[in-house]
Amino acid sequence: METMYLVGLGSIAALAFAGIMFTRVRRESPGSEEMKRISDAVSRGAGAYLKRQYRGVGIFFAVVFVILLCMAFAGLLSFFTPFAFLTGGFFSGLSGFIGMRTATMANCRTANAASQSLNRGLRVAFSAGSVMGFTVVGLGLLDLTFWYFLLHFWYTNIQPVATEAELIGNITANMLTFGMGASSMALFARVGGGIFTKAADVGADLVGKVEAGIPEDDPRNPAVIADNVGDNVGDVAGMGADLYESYVGSIVSTSALAVAAGFGMHGIGVPMLLAAMGVLCSIFGTFFVKTKEGASQRNLLTALRTGTYISAILIAVLSFFAVRILLPENIGVYFAVLSGLVAGVAIGALTEYYTSDSYKPTQRLSAASETGSATVIIGGLSLGMLSTVAPVVIVGVSVLLSYFVSGGAQDFNMGLYGVGVSAVGMLSTLGITLATDAYGPIADNAGGIAEMTHMPAEVRQRTDALDSLGNTTAATGKGFAIGSAAITALALIASYIDKVHQIDPNLQMDLSITNPTVLIGLFVGGMLPFLFAALTMDAVGKAAQSIVVEVRRQFREITGLMEGKAEPDYASCVDMCTKSAQKLMMAPALIAVATPIIVGLILGVTGVAGLLAGTTVTGFVLAVMMANAGGAWDNAKKYIESGAHGGKGSDCHKAAVVGDTVGDPFKDTSGPSINILIKLTSMVSIVFAGLIVAVHLL
Amino acid sequence: METMYLVGLGSIAALAFAGIMFTRVRRESPGSEEMKRISDAVSRGAGAYLKRQYRGVGIFFAVVFVILLCMAFAGLLSFFTPFAFLTGGFFSGLSGFIGMRTATMANCRTANAASQSLNRGLRVAFSAGSVMGFTVVGLGLLDLTFWYFLLHFWYTNIQPVATEAELIGNITANMLTFGMGASSMALFARVGGGIFTKAADVGADLVGKVEAGIPEDDPRNPAVIADNVGDNVGDVAGMGADLYESYVGSIVSTSALAVAAGFGMHGIGVPMLLAAMGVLCSIFGTFFVKTKEGASQRNLLTALRTGTYISAILIAVLSFFAVRILLPENIGVYFAVLSGLVAGVAIGALTEYYTSDSYKPTQRLSAASETGSATVIIGGLSLGMLSTVAPVVIVGVSVLLSYFVSGGAQDFNMGLYGVGVSAVGMLSTLGITLATDAYGPIADNAGGIAEMTHMPAEVRQRTDALDSLGNTTAATGKGFAIGSAAITALALIASYIDKVHQIDPNLQMDLSITNPTVLIGLFVGGMLPFLFAALTMDAVGKAAQSIVVEVRRQFREITGLMEGKAEPDYASCVDMCTKSAQKLMMAPALIAVATPIIVGLILGVTGVAGLLAGTTVTGFVLAVMMANAGGAWDNAKKYIESGAHGGKGSDCHKAAVVGDTVGDPFKDTSGPSINILIKLTSMVSIVFAGLIVAVHLL
Repeated sequence: METMYLVGLGSIAALAFAGIMFTRVRRESPGSEEMKRISDAVSRGAGAYLKRQYRGVGIFFAVVFVILLCMAFAGLLSFFTPFAFLTGGFFSGLSGFIGMRTATMANCRTANAASQSLNRGLRVAFSAGSVMGFTVVGLGLLDLTFWYFLLHFWYTNIQPVATEAELIGNITANMLTFGMGASSMALFARVGGGIFTKAADVGADLVGKVEAGIPEDDPRNPAVIADNVGDNVGDVAGMGADLYESYVGSIVSTSALAVAAGFGMHGIGVPMLLAAMGVLCSIFGTFFVKTKEGASQRNLLTALRTGTYISAILIAVLSFFAVRILLPENIGVYFAVLSGLVAGVAIGALTEYYTSDSYKPTQRLSAASETGSATVIIGGLSLGMLSTVAPVVIVGVSVLLSYFVSGGAQDFNMGLYGVGVSAVGMLSTLGITLATDAYGPIADNAGGIAEMTHMPAEVRQRTDALDSLGNTTAATGKGFAIGSAAITALALIASYIDKVHQIDPNLQMDLSITNPTVLIGLFVGGMLPFLFAALTMDAVGKAAQSIVVEVRRQFREITGLMEGKAEPDYASCVDMCTKSAQKLMMAPALIAVATPIIVGLILGVTGVAGLLAGTTVTGFVLAVMMANAGGAWDNAKKYIESGAHGGKGSDCHKAAVVGDTVGDPFKDTSGPSINILIKLTSMVSIVFAGLIVAVHLL
Repeated sequence: METMYLVGLGSIAALAFAGIMFTRVRRESPGSEEMKRISDAVSRGAGAYLKRQYRGVGIFFAVVFVILLCMAFAGLLSFFTPFAFLTGGFFSGLSGFIGMRTATMANCRTANAASQSLNRGLRVAFSAGSVMGFTVVGLGLLDLTFWYFLLHFWYTNIQPVATEAELIGNITANMLTFGMGASSMALFARVGGGIFTKAADVGADLVGKVEAGIPEDDPRNPAVIADNVGDNVGDVAGMGADLYESYVGSIVSTSALAVAAGFGMHGIGVPMLLAAMGVLCSIFGTFFVKTKEGASQRNLLTALRTGTYISAILIAVLSFFAVRILLPENIGVYFAVLSGLVAGVAIGALTEYYTSDSYKPTQRLSAASETGSATVIIGGLSLGMLSTVAPVVIVGVSVLLSYFVSGGAQDFNMGLYGVGVSAVGMLSTLGITLATDAYGPIADNAGGIAEMTHMPAEVRQRTDALDSLGNTTAATGKGFAIGSAAITALALIASYIDKVHQIDPNLQMDLSITNPTVLIGLFVGGMLPFLFAALTMDAVGKAAQSIVVEVRRQFREITGLMEGKAEPDYASCVDMCTKSAQKLMMAPALIAVATPIIVGLILGVTGVAGLLAGTTVTGFVLAVMMANAGGAWDNAKKYIESGAHGGKGSDCHKAAVVGDTVGDPFKDTSGPSINILIKLTSMVSIVFAGLIVAVHLL
């Protein structure tokens, strides 16, 4: 109970820090009139997108809310769930909204600050990223605190239960179902945003760069604003909603597992306290992110890394005391925290190794361009596939360690609790990790504005340095997101099975992989990420196609556009991207929600368990592969642009551009969407477990 | 026991029929001197390749044989296993060898027969394919019969056992370990052959077609013979060894499961009898493969299909009586046979839908070339991913049906036996299925010879028609191969667990997916096909690179080559491909063999079980995706060549060529190799089960 007050305090600290950062960014000068005008256009476009998205999502939420309410009336759910579903969705969406608003406000300010010095540019972009990071963390903890106290009050005063064990059992069981709202919102944000951003990007490039031969981010390109809007709705709002969900999901499922493991209130305290302390460590870490003028890209990266590493080391030390105080007889749990922290850092570092052009793999990939685009594609795919080995081994070792150090050999449930704690450990410093990540698209947008407003060369150099670094942090951020999603998903699977046991303690579940329902569940689950990737890639293709047509039309019909005498109709491109994204995200979203229910109705709970395991395993591998292949293609192209293999405009460059274009939906749409898929399927399964059990008992 | 005589008869019938077909093909005229010369060069090259391959493989077999012998001395294995390992490898290799010899003999004869009529060309190519098909089936059954009678004799006379139950238990347990030899040989044939064929193909195309601008199959291209050799070593010998393994593996594992299910001798009789009857049905079916002059491609396809469908319907009828007689109290098993048969046909038909240019998906893919090679790549990948949905559902439904109709609800082992029977049902008409499949590369080679010897246009038209059809049958054959591999692998997993129970009946195995060792096994297994695909794709890239260098060198250094006055040095290209393939196939092969052993040593038998399930699930999905994407890219290019989207030489064509080049290693190297990976890991696990159990009991 006392730790929950700390969580509340952590929430307040995070939100206050986000507020301070927001004020600091807003106080910066937005620069010239022209810069403001472009920034406003991006901001308006992003606002228009979100408005429409929330309308579409609103309908979805309304329908699901009614379904959940009916299930609650039928006794298949607690009455809290439908409402918690709404709050989860609301807070997840709000995180994305605030992050995106800040980002669109910060882009011109970053460009302007960069005209003063590199360090100022870095500080502004990073501060804006921090708003996102700490809002996500703060709102997540707020949601947890709110529901914890509400449920606690309810089960002690309104509908009192007999024992403390029953009380916390009821609280965690209820809270476990909350993630579905956050998951659904995250899915829409990621898939919709991902389609939007890449459709605009591909559309702008195909007609502007390739056909018309004008540079990237040229203001004459009608899709250029949509491209910038896309960075914000996809990479900022989408990423925020995604990690909101992992964060809350890992904490809640670990709490639920604590009850199953018999750790009681103190077991719940550990993830809560870790989260609260993580906020403070993250805030502390942000003060170390600074650089000096003329810093190389490596220096810049070090600046960002110092912050994250200091936070990680700090939480590693503090969490020892947390475990020591709360679970003195199970000090092994501390090593679960450590293993999660180390795994998160290791996956991030490996992602950088595979996708940064400072290392062999990407350099070799850019050399493949010597023999044409086909070898670039084959090379990138095989690089991506190869890069899955180490993360799988890392996750495997981390899970095994967490399980056994927490006492899994004696008690199965204690081991699973350890796995959950390792996910919380990995995500504990999310505030600063996410800040580093959200920094990327902000710097990217700042570079765009510098380009469009023809700022002096030295400013562009600085924004380019910031932007280029953003590519690396975006790639490591994706590695971290998928790694944490996989471990969170494992905790959720364990919670699911636990939940089924609670619903019907007499139900015999044969979860062996030789049980055909489990096996078929595995097969369907293994296929699901492929289906999901196919649909999202297709969606990008279709949406981009409509942008291509529109941009060509504007080039043809607006006289004086190419000479810079007339302005293109930016809004129509933004509008088309918005419409396409909204329409095309529906099919993948419905499949993600419907599959676990359908599999459950046909194959029962064991089939669902197989499905979840299959989706997590294949989803993890496929997402890592897609993200890393995409990142490597992007940087292989940049490596050539920096002068290797003939430089910009050479045949090698053209071959590398093909790789980059293929990589766009890989790394920014399909890959990240799979993160959410694996968590959402678990969440839906947990919420609908009552229904599935009831149907199969009929 | 009586059914084993029938199996012996079936083996003799298959081999006799293969012999007759071989004589018939040999009796055909090989055509002009020039045709003979080229055919001889291909034949010599293929022979040289196989010689070297068998040398490398010989070392591998010798080492493993010694290891197995040591394990036998240590009491971890039966003494039969090391020797059975050798016979399995020998027969699997021999099947490939005979098939390839026939194919290289048949190529000029097919071209020559096509100069007389389309039907004659079809008959010769198909007859040559039949030699392959029936040799595989005949040798497979011969191996089974030989060992059955040897073991039966041993355990009744040399080392007599008390009861019949013990007798058949010993026989099947021993036979189960035989597949590892066949699997290993298949792996080398598939991976080595796959690297060879695609390195030659890509190398020949990149320099010849793209750089020098000479047509495909032009005799001036130094890599052209290597390209033709590749078709034989990869698509004929590799495919033969692969399916030999599925065929024998499914029969043996079903027999072993029959003992576990308590069906005894009659239970073993069903798969044996199905196989024996399948030979006769297949032979009968071959007589219906004929066409008339001027037949459209659809007619040609119908000609081949009629044969396979008649065989399938016949076995569907006959197997009813087989089950009725042998297992009258379990007539449900018959429906398992049916479900396997139907699933095989359905997967084949679906593969055709996704990869043939007569249908929407491939047509749409070729339309994607309008916006460049990047959209072709994205489109092909998403087509491949989408095409995994239906096969997964088909396999799922088929497994579920087979399990429950065979009594899985009452007895777990009876259900698993049903799954095994469905795999045998699917593979029962392998003779004709494989004939249809091996027909493809023969027709392809015949087309090459017609092109190189400048035969009249009408002959080329006929060989083109035959070749184009070969692409479709190759694609459906691949679908069938992977579908049967997946179900066979499931039967093998069940046999593995059964085997562990036999080794130590007291061992408690928690195979639930919540057990962390199972879960981590699943993760590693899910990653393995990705690693395997990456290594094999890289191998093709590296090998192709060396061919590119060599072809460029010859163009530069051999004076008069381009004018047709001097001959290129074909042999050096063949030699380089051979060397590269031999060297580069080692890493993937060793990984496939070592992973289950390493995982077993670290995680124990439950980890291995997870590994096998993970590899089967992800391997199936990835193999289907790669095969179908590759097939669709190939045919999308052909569709454009036939006149769509600007035809040959247009920008669309160039974009489609990029897709085709990426698809080459997808469909002919990595995809098919994964088939073997999933079976080989199971086989290795079964053979090394004794070691793993012993180590973990220490």
